Amino acid sequence: MPPSVSVFGAAGFTGALTARLLHRHPTFELCAVTARSDVGRRLDDLYPYHRVPITLEELDLDRHADVDGAVVAYPHGAAAPLVAELRERGVRVVDLSADFRLRDRAVYELWYRDHVAPELLSEAVYGLPERYRAEICQADLVANPGCFPTAALLALAPLARDGLIEDVVIDAKSGVSGAGRSPSERTHFVAVDENVSAYGVPRHRHTPEIEQELAALGADVRVTFTPHLLPLDQGELLSCYVTVAENGDNGVDLDRLYDEFYGSEPFVEITPEPPGVRDVRETNICRLSVHRDVRTGRVIVFAAIDNLWKGAASQAVQNLNLMFGLPESEGIA
Amino acid sequence: MPPSVSVFGAAGFTGALTARLLHRHPTFELCAVTARSDVGRRLDDLYPYHRVPITLEELDLDRHADVDGAVVAYPHGAAAPLVAELRERGVRVVDLSADFRLRDRAVYELWYRDHVAPELLSEAVYGLPERYRAEICQADLVANPGCFPTAALLALAPLARDGLIEDVVIDAKSGVSGAGRSPSERTHFVAVDENVSAYGVPRHRHTPEIEQELAALGADVRVTFTPHLLPLDQGELLSCYVTVAENGDNGVDLDRLYDEFYGSEPFVEITPEPPGVRDVRETNICRLSVHRDVRTGRVIVFAAIDNLWKGAASQAVQNLNLMFGLPESEGIA
Amino acid sequence: MPPSVSVFGAAGFTGALTARLLHRHPTFELCAVTARSDVGRRLDDLYPYHRVPITLEELDLDRHADVDGAVVAYPHGAAAPLVAELRERGVRVVDLSADFRLRDRAVYELWYRDHVAPELLSEAVYGLPERYRAEICQADLVANPGCFPTAALLALAPLARDGLIEDVVIDAKSGVSGAGRSPSERTHFVAVDENVSAYGVPRHRHTPEIEQELAALGADVRVTFTPHLLPLDQGELLSCYVTVAENGDNGVDLDRLYDEFYGSEPFVEITPEPPGVRDVRETNICRLSVHRDVRTGRVIVFAAIDNLWKGAASQAVQNLNLMFGLPESEGIA
Amino acid sequence: MPPSVSVFGAAGFTGALTARLLHRHPTFELCAVTARSDVGRRLDDLYPYHRVPITLEELDLDRHADVDGAVVAYPHGAAAPLVAELRERGVRVVDLSADFRLRDRAVYELWYRDHVAPELLSEAVYGLPERYRAEICQADLVANPGCFPTAALLALAPLARDGLIEDVVIDAKSGVSGAGRSPSERTHFVAVDENVSAYGVPRHRHTPEIEQELAALGADVRVTFTPHLLPLDQGELLSCYVTVAENGDNGVDLDRLYDEFYGSEPFVEITPEPPGVRDVRETNICRLSVHRDVRTGRVIVFAAIDNLWKGAASQAVQNLNLMFGLPESEGIA
Repeated sequence: MPPSVSVFGAAGFTGALTARLLHRHPTFELCAVTARSDVGRRLDDLYPYHRVPITLEELDLDRHADVDGAVVAYPHGAAAPLVAELRERGVRVVDLSADFRLRDRAVYELWYRDHVAPELLSEAVYGLPERYRAEICQADLVANPGCFPTAALLALAPLARDGLIEDVVIDAKSGVSGAGRSPSERTHFVAVDENVSAYGVPRHRHTPEIEQELAALGADVRVTFTPHLLPLDQGELLSCYVTVAENGDNGVDLDRLYDEFYGSEPFVEITPEPPGVRDVRETNICRLSVHRDVRTGRVIVFAAIDNLWKGAASQAVQNLNLMFGLPESEGIA
Repeated sequence: MPPSVSVFGAAGFTGALTARLLHRHPTFELCAVTARSDVGRRLDDLYPYHRVPITLEELDLDRHADVDGAVVAYPHGAAAPLVAELRERGVRVVDLSADFRLRDRAVYELWYRDHVAPELLSEAVYGLPERYRAEICQADLVANPGCFPTAALLALAPLARDGLIEDVVIDAKSGVSGAGRSPSERTHFVAVDENVSAYGVPRHRHTPEIEQELAALGADVRVTFTPHLLPLDQGELLSCYVTVAENGDNGVDLDRLYDEFYGSEPFVEITPEPPGVRDVRETNICRLSVHRDVRTGRVIVFAAIDNLWKGAASQAVQNLNLMFGLPESEGIA
Repeated sequence: MPPSVSVFGAAGFTGALTARLLHRHPTFELCAVTARSDVGRRLDDLYPYHRVPITLEELDLDRHADVDGAVVAYPHGAAAPLVAELRERGVRVVDLSADFRLRDRAVYELWYRDHVAPELLSEAVYGLPERYRAEICQADLVANPGCFPTAALLALAPLARDGLIEDVVIDAKSGVSGAGRSPSERTHFVAVDENVSAYGVPRHRHTPEIEQELAALGADVRVTFTPHLLPLDQGELLSCYVTVAENGDNGVDLDRLYDEFYGSEPFVEITPEPPGVRDVRETNICRLSVHRDVRTGRVIVFAAIDNLWKGAASQAVQNLNLMFGLPESEGIA
Repeated sequence: MPPSVSVFGAAGFTGALTARLLHRHPTFELCAVTARSDVGRRLDDLYPYHRVPITLEELDLDRHADVDGAVVAYPHGAAAPLVAELRERGVRVVDLSADFRLRDRAVYELWYRDHVAPELLSEAVYGLPERYRAEICQADLVANPGCFPTAALLALAPLARDGLIEDVVIDAKSGVSGAGRSPSERTHFVAVDENVSAYGVPRHRHTPEIEQELAALGADVRVTFTPHLLPLDQGELLSCYVTVAENGDNGVDLDRLYDEFYGSEPFVEITPEPPGVRDVRETNICRLSVHRDVRTGRVIVFAAIDNLWKGAASQAVQNLNLMFGLPESEGIA
């Protein structure tokens, strides 16, 4: 029997893409897609290019939770209670929200809101497979990373593990799909086209998530993180400016460090040229390039991902594959 | 008699725009436009939207240098000998190349090439009116700043003057017109569209120009400067991440500092919200916004300009206005 | 005393641009801008690039109608009662809606809704200056043409007048600003970017307006008109495919016909090459190109305008100039 | 033994994409990729997103023609001699150029140039599988259709077969990738961005190809065909305006006609809403929508394809699949 899955919250960009990936997945059986808006519309009406001929249904746990696995694509705060219900019924969950990413409830509540299911925090595994593969394989609840933290952590992990990060500035450039499907003044074509500007200044909510995971790697730093909105739909480029720790061996061979760290990873590419987001469009790949500025001693790391794929939906499937003992790349390569 | 001017090198983006601004200028009389390619074509054929019904001519100094003022829009290295000839004939020059921006010949030759007219370096004034207005009014040779240095210096000058800059990372986002008119693999629509990537890593040539002028303000720092190419035509956004000097009063009121520093400047706007490049499109305005990240102590300054206007052509006209005793905003407001 | 004007409905794209043009106009004095949303916000907050430092006010006819002229930028149906009030108070009005464009009330009510001020229909002049200049100079109420009809009529008028049109297909390509400022699924960046599709098929409301004015020129035809939405902000290109009337002299010299018809018009350009919308961006110009396909006998006319300028706001100012006896190009050239 | 294939001319957009599709194809074995420029560079250096780790080689027929099948992606005129050599060696060929699309040598020479391998014209099958599936299955030489004819013929075939086309205007909108990879003034980002214009007026070379195939279906008409360049990379939308033949039953049920005509086709979709090119991006699908304008009696058919996929590379693989007896959708669904 193939493992059965439901996608909860499939009307939005990331939920819909997850549904598409699972609909075409060689092993998983996509049983249901639910939504809080657009109930009764078919996914291939909302998103013709996904070609998922399934109708969005109103949430009915008795029917929709009778599955082996679930992906929850609800907004922050709204996800936690649904995840708790699903876990109670024994469903294994990948949650796309921020609700279970921060291990410290106090940090979550400082940056987001009161937590409604704090008892699950200790159970949740942070779903960055390149970092927590073994734990994910055993997990029943995986917190899928934010798109910016995914790219930031893949960019900085080798330096963080080796104690080379004294300080870091992360300048992020994101396509508009990262802002979600709801129409707004900010996502109107005329507001974005021929434009670029920063947002979330100076405290974007992905900051504590990046800091938590850098600290877990040994780099206890406060991060300056600033995203910018660009006139493109999918894609995210992070430019990470690292001040190298004085006790760090500044003569380290960066190319070799990154090659060894990521040598066997199927979804990490390392290139001498700065990557473009087009290089990774509609893939689960993170493309990295590391450079040393000998004039300033600074190390610059660029990371490009597709925010909807590796930054959300395809990474969720990568996590599901691991949780259910399937080949990690199945359905996403 | 109105002052007469010629534009040398008017087939490129910045030269052509300079020609347009001077063609419609209330006081200057545009006498000739020369080019090294496209000789014999009319400017309004090459650039219909500029509506300059003048034919591009091959350089003939006897005719074209018989003017009061000139704008030279030649590539780096090619500009210096023409500027030298024009100066010998007594023509007052605004040069759009990098040839006379760096006061130290050795620095120029390190980043560019051998200098063919070093004797003029001491005569040249750096053409950032907000910084050197008095000198420009007296100058016969003005070196128009690079587009990135223009935005960077306007963003950082108040902090530099007050000794607040310990270190700075400048992450720049530029539209494609900054790469010039020559078709190339890099400027092909398909290469740029739905893409973003860094270039000139880790040593872009605008770096020494920024460092020279920050030093002149009192900030002797090595700058990390990285430009990125974006899918838009005109516009440039700089995100400047400043580590504040420890001896600096970190409690300084940044808004007040910037308001006082730029209080009466006609072409500098200061806003609480991070600016977008669309806000300054086709204007001579630099729009700034300054923020303090209290978590890290860092100061973040955003600066938006139109790279072809304030970053090149309209700033050249601003300089010409000052050199010829005209109202600074004439023809560009 | 300079003539005073108010703009009613200045929060939308066309109203705001009209306010900008009048704010900088050498003669008119912009007294007030009203809005139905965003009351209390300043226009230069909503539209920084327009740089109009005036606050949007709630409609108060006693104050805002105490002017010589008015531009009404209300939606269809909402405009008519306001226009009626303004006319009663003796204010001369340019109306940007469709409410007074169709002379035949029945046609209006077929394509739009019940008309609330039909008594004004006979008074209104259709505000295409290249066609009705003399009437506009005498008018108290001018119905500003729709953007598509403006381009279509300028493209087809010479052929229509000479009885050459047997049949015509108009394929229009429009930037997104034509869809207005309200955020919607259709104007979301992600829906428009890398996309193109037709809308309003097969009955777009601009069709009867085009047919009315072609008939007035002598061409009594049913028009097939189909607009398409393109990934650009401002600009409109019409490709008009004309089957030439059999009794028409198919050997007519088209270039000469167009040159003579538009010889002295300040805002019509005729070019041998098909025009691009970029050629007319942010201008009041319509750029035309006429071609004969000798294989099929068909005549193809291309017309490019900026939908917000010649298609709406700058044409409104052109009309105001004429109504108040000012030079036709004042403030818009 | 899996059938072996080479791609000749793999440095361009369509050749490179063909190489990618064959590199990942479950059955075909991609043996070599040749190029006339960029020899020695790896395809995944030129096109990172295709991820084909194979080096472009200079043509060496003894090595590269020792295969079962070949795709030739050379320019018109250059393809014919290579195709002739390959056929002599017994290689089965799909040719992406126009060299073997027109059955009548005189027509080819009128629109293109002298034909260097006219003896092969009778052997070539026009590679539109939805029309010539049986013939393609038997063919040794398939002329892959042009991108515009592919969409035009799929849009019009049902009407043509039933004798309903009296006259047709085809207005096409194309992304920039259709103009090829060579950098030029026309493909520079700044020339395309925020722009739209017609090209190839009034005689585009795809016209006779459309007419030939419409005639073969019974519709002997002269087509007016005008393509326009849009600011997007991949995608093509055709708006076909059909004047219905007077003897045609104008009351025909168009939806039923199209549904029946294409009922079982795996790569044709019929929708009530006008399609967008985004709906078919990176697919082999043609999405159609048919509408009747009751006011004019005209029938309007919209067709959207991806010009690089169904308009070139994936259709070439579809043809190869048929020629080698594989499932038609293998590697392209």
